[in-house]
Amino acid sequence: MTSETARLPRIDPQRLRQDLETLGKIGRNAETGGIDRVSFSDADIEGRRFVAKLMEAAGLTVSMDGAGNLSGRWEVGEGPVVMLGSHLDSVPNGGMFDGALGVIAALECVRAMKEAGLTPARPLEVMATAEEEGRFGGMFGAQALAGQVTRDWLETARDDGGTRLFDAMRAQGLEPYEALKAKRPEGSIAAFLELHVEQGPVLEAAGKPAGIVTGISGVFNWTVRLSGEANHSGTTPMEMRRDAFMGLADFAHGIPELIAEHGSAASRVTIGKVAVEPNFPHTVPGQAEFSLVARDMDETVMRALAQGAKARIEAAAKTRGLSFSIEETSWLAPSPCHPEIVAAFQRAAERLGLDTPLLPSGAGHDAQTMAAITRAGLIFVPSIGGISHAPEERTEWVDIEAGASLLLYAAMELCE
Amino acid sequence: MTSETARLPRIDPQRLRQDLETLGKIGRNAETGGIDRVSFSDADIEGRRFVAKLMEAAGLTVSMDGAGNLSGRWEVGEGPVVMLGSHLDSVPNGGMFDGALGVIAALECVRAMKEAGLTPARPLEVMATAEEEGRFGGMFGAQALAGQVTRDWLETARDDGGTRLFDAMRAQGLEPYEALKAKRPEGSIAAFLELHVEQGPVLEAAGKPAGIVTGISGVFNWTVRLSGEANHSGTTPMEMRRDAFMGLADFAHGIPELIAEHGSAASRVTIGKVAVEPNFPHTVPGQAEFSLVARDMDETVMRALAQGAKARIEAAAKTRGLSFSIEETSWLAPSPCHPEIVAAFQRAAERLGLDTPLLPSGAGHDAQTMAAITRAGLIFVPSIGGISHAPEERTEWVDIEAGASLLLYAAMELCE
Repeated sequence: MTSETARLPRIDPQRLRQDLETLGKIGRNAETGGIDRVSFSDADIEGRRFVAKLMEAAGLTVSMDGAGNLSGRWEVGEGPVVMLGSHLDSVPNGGMFDGALGVIAALECVRAMKEAGLTPARPLEVMATAEEEGRFGGMFGAQALAGQVTRDWLETARDDGGTRLFDAMRAQGLEPYEALKAKRPEGSIAAFLELHVEQGPVLEAAGKPAGIVTGISGVFNWTVRLSGEANHSGTTPMEMRRDAFMGLADFAHGIPELIAEHGSAASRVTIGKVAVEPNFPHTVPGQAEFSLVARDMDETVMRALAQGAKARIEAAAKTRGLSFSIEETSWLAPSPCHPEIVAAFQRAAERLGLDTPLLPSGAGHDAQTMAAITRAGLIFVPSIGGISHAPEERTEWVDIEAGASLLLYAAMELCE
Repeated sequence: MTSETARLPRIDPQRLRQDLETLGKIGRNAETGGIDRVSFSDADIEGRRFVAKLMEAAGLTVSMDGAGNLSGRWEVGEGPVVMLGSHLDSVPNGGMFDGALGVIAALECVRAMKEAGLTPARPLEVMATAEEEGRFGGMFGAQALAGQVTRDWLETARDDGGTRLFDAMRAQGLEPYEALKAKRPEGSIAAFLELHVEQGPVLEAAGKPAGIVTGISGVFNWTVRLSGEANHSGTTPMEMRRDAFMGLADFAHGIPELIAEHGSAASRVTIGKVAVEPNFPHTVPGQAEFSLVARDMDETVMRALAQGAKARIEAAAKTRGLSFSIEETSWLAPSPCHPEIVAAFQRAAERLGLDTPLLPSGAGHDAQTMAAITRAGLIFVPSIGGISHAPEERTEWVDIEAGASLLLYAAMELCE
C-alpha cells in the first residue's frame, strides 16, 4: 500500500453512525421499534438500494449477483480482493446492528482509506450478503459466493410460512438460477473480514471494546424422547412411577456435571424446548421430549459431550424405568477463523492500543461460510445486556468506532 | 337383621358380571372400546334407565332426585338408611368399571340379602350418583345429597366446552333448581358404603383381592413460575445464564429428597404440566411455569411439604439467578373414612378370610363428599396395571366378587 499523504486513515464515527441510523429506518416496525428486513422482502431490497447509493457515493463499482449479494468494489491494485462485509437482512423484529453494522463499517473503512489518500496494493470489496438469517434454512448469500448452493436446494427451499425461495426472489425481480453463477473463482478472494455484534454478554461483562473471534463453535442438535407411563398422580405411589419428566429433570440437573467431566470453558449445553405429555397437572407425565443443543470449539470435546450426555440420559432413564430415543438432527464441526487473520486483527489491536480478548462465537456468521473459499476472520463488538435479535439490540458508539478501526487496520495490512 | 333361613347371603358373580357388561355396552365408543357416559349425556341417562329397571326387578322402590341421583330403596326395617353405591357417569372414553362397579355391586348385595331371606333391621338404599367425574367442576350428585350445592353455583357452572350445567340438565328433562331439594335430612343416613376400582397399582402389586381405604388424601395445587432471561444458547456462557428451565430441573430433581425430609410413605408429589418460554431449541429458557400437586393423608405433613417445597424453589431460583412466584390454586384437607366403617369392613374381611390391606386413596370419590353427612367408608378392588379412565380399565372378576362380598358383609352388619 502506498500513501499520497502522511495521514493515517481514521474511521469517522459520526458518518458511520448517521449511515447506520438511516439504514435502521428502513424496515423499522413502528409499533415495536424493531427491524423487519427479512430476506427478499421489500424492505430488504430497499436497504440494499440505500447501501448501493452509499457505495456509489464512495466511488465504488456497484453490482448485485444472482443471489442478491450487493458488492461495492474499489478497483485498485492487483491480485485477489480483500473483502470486508456482513449481511443486510434481519430476523423479524430484529435489531439495527446485526449484520448492518458489518456492512456500513466495511464501507466506512474504504472511505477512510480513500480519504487518507491510500492506494492499496490489492482491490478492496465491500460485501453485503443476502439471506444470512436463514429464512430459507441456510446462509444463502455467502453459500452462493462459496459455490455451495445446489440447483436442487434452490428449487425446493421454502420458508416457515411455505413461501418458496424461488417465488420470494422472483417477486423482487431476481432470477433464482443466476444464484448458481454467484460462485467466486478459486483464489480470487485474499481474505474475508467481518465485524459483527457479539449477540452475547461476554465482552460487556469483561469491559472490553471489541473481541477477536477464534472460530465458530461446532454444534450438535438432538431431539431426545423419554417414554414412561402416564398415571394418575394421586393413586400412583412414587416408587411405582415411570415419570418421564423426572427423567428429564435428573438429566438436566446433571448438565453442569456433564460439562465439568467432558466439556471445556467454551462448552454450551442447552435444553431450550420441552414438551411433556399428557401435560396435565394431575397426571404423571408418560412422555417427555426435549431439545439438547451442545457447542464447543473442539470437535473432540463435542464427541466427549455427546457420549457423556448419552450415558447420562441412559442412566436417568434406567433409574426412572423409562425407555429413550435420541435423534441427532444436525452435527456441525467447529469452524476456526484463519490464524493469519486472527494474527492480523491482533496486530491491529496492538497498533490501536485496544484490549481485545480472543473468544469463540456460539452463533454462525457469514465468515464461517466464507472460510470454505478464503482466509476468514471475525471480530465482535459488545452487545449491551447481551441482547440481539430484538428491538433493544444496542452497542455503544465508542465500541463501534473501536471495532471499525480494528477492521480498518487489519484490512490495511492485508492490502499491503 | 333376622333371617328366615339358615343360608348366608352370597354374591352371584355371574349375575354381577352380566349386569356390569350389559351396562358397559351403553355409551360404548365403537372405535376405542371406551365408555362415553359423560354426565347428563344421552348415554348417561340411558345407563340410569337400565339400572332403574334392574332395581325394579329386584323389588326396590326407584326414584330420581333433582340432581339426577338414581335411588333404589328396600323399604324394610326402620330408622336411618344404610346406603350403598357409587356413580354412573364416566369420563370421556373411560372404563366400564369406574363408578358402575360400585352401583351394580350395591344392587347385587341387596339382591343377595333378599335371596338369602334376610330381613334387615334398617332400610337399605342403592345409590347411583350423578356427575361424579366433575364435568361441571364438582361432585354434583353427592354434593346435592349432602346439601352442598348452592343456587349461585348451579346457575353459573359450565363444562370445558362452555355448556351450562343448566342447559345440560334441561336437555335431559331435569329441572336444575330441583337439585337444591336433593339434600337428605340430617340423621337420615346411617352409613354410606362405596366399592370402587383402585385406579392405581398398589393392590395388584401387593397381590391382594381388595383394600380398605383409610381416607382420601389431602391435596394442594400450585402453579409455580420461574423467571430468568431468554438468551441465545450459543453466545451466552453457562455461568452468565439465568436459565428458568434449569431452575425447574434442579427443583424437580430434588423431589425425592423433599419427600424424604418432610413427607411420608403416603406422600405423592407430581410435576405434571410444564411450559417453557420461548420454547425454542437455540434459546436459553427465560420462563418456566409448572404445576406442583402434592398429596398426603396428614395435613401437618402437607404443610411441611409445602414449606419444604417453597424453600427448595427459592434455593433453586437463587442458584440460577431467577425470580419466582407460587400461586396456590387449591388446598384440600385430607378426608378420613369413618373409623367405625373401616372397622366394619375389617370384620367383614376377617369373616370372609380375605387379606385386605389398609391404604389411602389419592383420588376423590363420592364417599369423600358423603362423609360430610354420614359415616362413610370406601373399599377398593385392584386395577390391572393401575389403569383407569381409559378403555383398557380392567379388574379381575374374582377380585370383583371378593370386593362385592366385603361390601355385602359390612352392609349386613350395619343393618343389624
